[in-house]
Amino acid sequence: MSSPPSARTRVRRYHHIAHYDAATIHAILDAMPMCNVGYVHEGQPVVTPTLQWREGDRIYWHGSSASRMIRAVKSQPVCVTVTIFDGLVLARSAYNYNINHRSVMIFGVAEMVEDPQEKRRQLQRFVDGFIPGQWDRLRPVTEQELKATTLMSLPITEASAKVRTGPPEDEAADYAFPVWAGVVPVRMAIDAPVPDPRNLPGVEMPPEVRAFKIG
Amino acid sequence: MSSPPSARTRVRRYHHIAHYDAATIHAILDAMPMCNVGYVHEGQPVVTPTLQWREGDRIYWHGSSASRMIRAVKSQPVCVTVTIFDGLVLARSAYNYNINHRSVMIFGVAEMVEDPQEKRRQLQRFVDGFIPGQWDRLRPVTEQELKATTLMSLPITEASAKVRTGPPEDEAADYAFPVWAGVVPVRMAIDAPVPDPRNLPGVEMPPEVRAFKIG
Repeated sequence: MSSPPSARTRVRRYHHIAHYDAATIHAILDAMPMCNVGYVHEGQPVVTPTLQWREGDRIYWHGSSASRMIRAVKSQPVCVTVTIFDGLVLARSAYNYNINHRSVMIFGVAEMVEDPQEKRRQLQRFVDGFIPGQWDRLRPVTEQELKATTLMSLPITEASAKVRTGPPEDEAADYAFPVWAGVVPVRMAIDAPVPDPRNLPGVEMPPEVRAFKIG
Repeated sequence: MSSPPSARTRVRRYHHIAHYDAATIHAILDAMPMCNVGYVHEGQPVVTPTLQWREGDRIYWHGSSASRMIRAVKSQPVCVTVTIFDGLVLARSAYNYNINHRSVMIFGVAEMVEDPQEKRRQLQRFVDGFIPGQWDRLRPVTEQELKATTLMSLPITEASAKVRTGPPEDEAADYAFPVWAGVVPVRMAIDAPVPDPRNLPGVEMPPEVRAFKIG
């Protein structure tokens, strides 16, 4: 997609940094599990931060079947955003201050995934998406846990991305103004894993844990 | 505040990690400028990522006066969230997977700040909040730029925080299950500032730029 799939998806401000192609959108979704789900609850807007993962042209998120967010979004319109902060852009004027970032916004109607096998398969993908192979190492999931978990899904059909990189973009005349301009890069860093003090003697950390990355 | 200021602000899930005191809420808001503003636009929920800053019991954000978000939130109910991802919590069961995080959710009605002096003062606080003293180094803001910028404000009266730290919390019986459990810490890292190739010869980077921190 090189054009917006719907009017409300068209990026109006900074449209030169807008993207509508699946490759760009998928790459951002895959890089950052943290998302914000917006919905209307009793007439009021609510935003709930949660974790999303993707398969094909859909994102998924889960939650306690008792949670306000889960109860409020079933078959309801939602707006899901994912944002990665890549840097502070110090321009020559306050007006041209910016942040380097990658973001995605998806509109749609949230669907509950009811099929137990598909639910289990997606929850495994969620867990293994962080640490490959981890699902099979864990204490197996119980039927009761599966029931207490609701899986939601949203098609990535009405989506847009913004990607802003590089140095400041100042007004032409401002390049003659003698102030330092540039970018302070920001990224997600992963520190050394901290074992649970209650780990059993002899359990080994899977090497995949050290490969965890985000952003 | 040690109790929720309103029913919709009461944290229902994981209520043991909920906080309602100003010190906890302010510290999270001050640590992370990235926020998500949720609002209702033409009957649909919309979430717009933007940057917030705080003074006292209010947060502020700004935008182009022409932007959809700015036009939609004036005197309207909003929900603003700020989330900091601190770590992936690898429990012994998928059900107890978690993330260490600090988050804030604020409900309220967004107010436009119309007084030009207050607008200018807050925009200076925004710029100086990243890099102290930077506002006075920049090419001065023009009246036209101020007019093209809308400043919004939200009182932090109906707010809650969640703070989750430490090792996994597994079911009692699961501690006997022989799988590695622990936390993979995540943080925002700042890399060396990258000067704009178009900087004038001889302009020096203010030392405050190197002190920029986030998260």
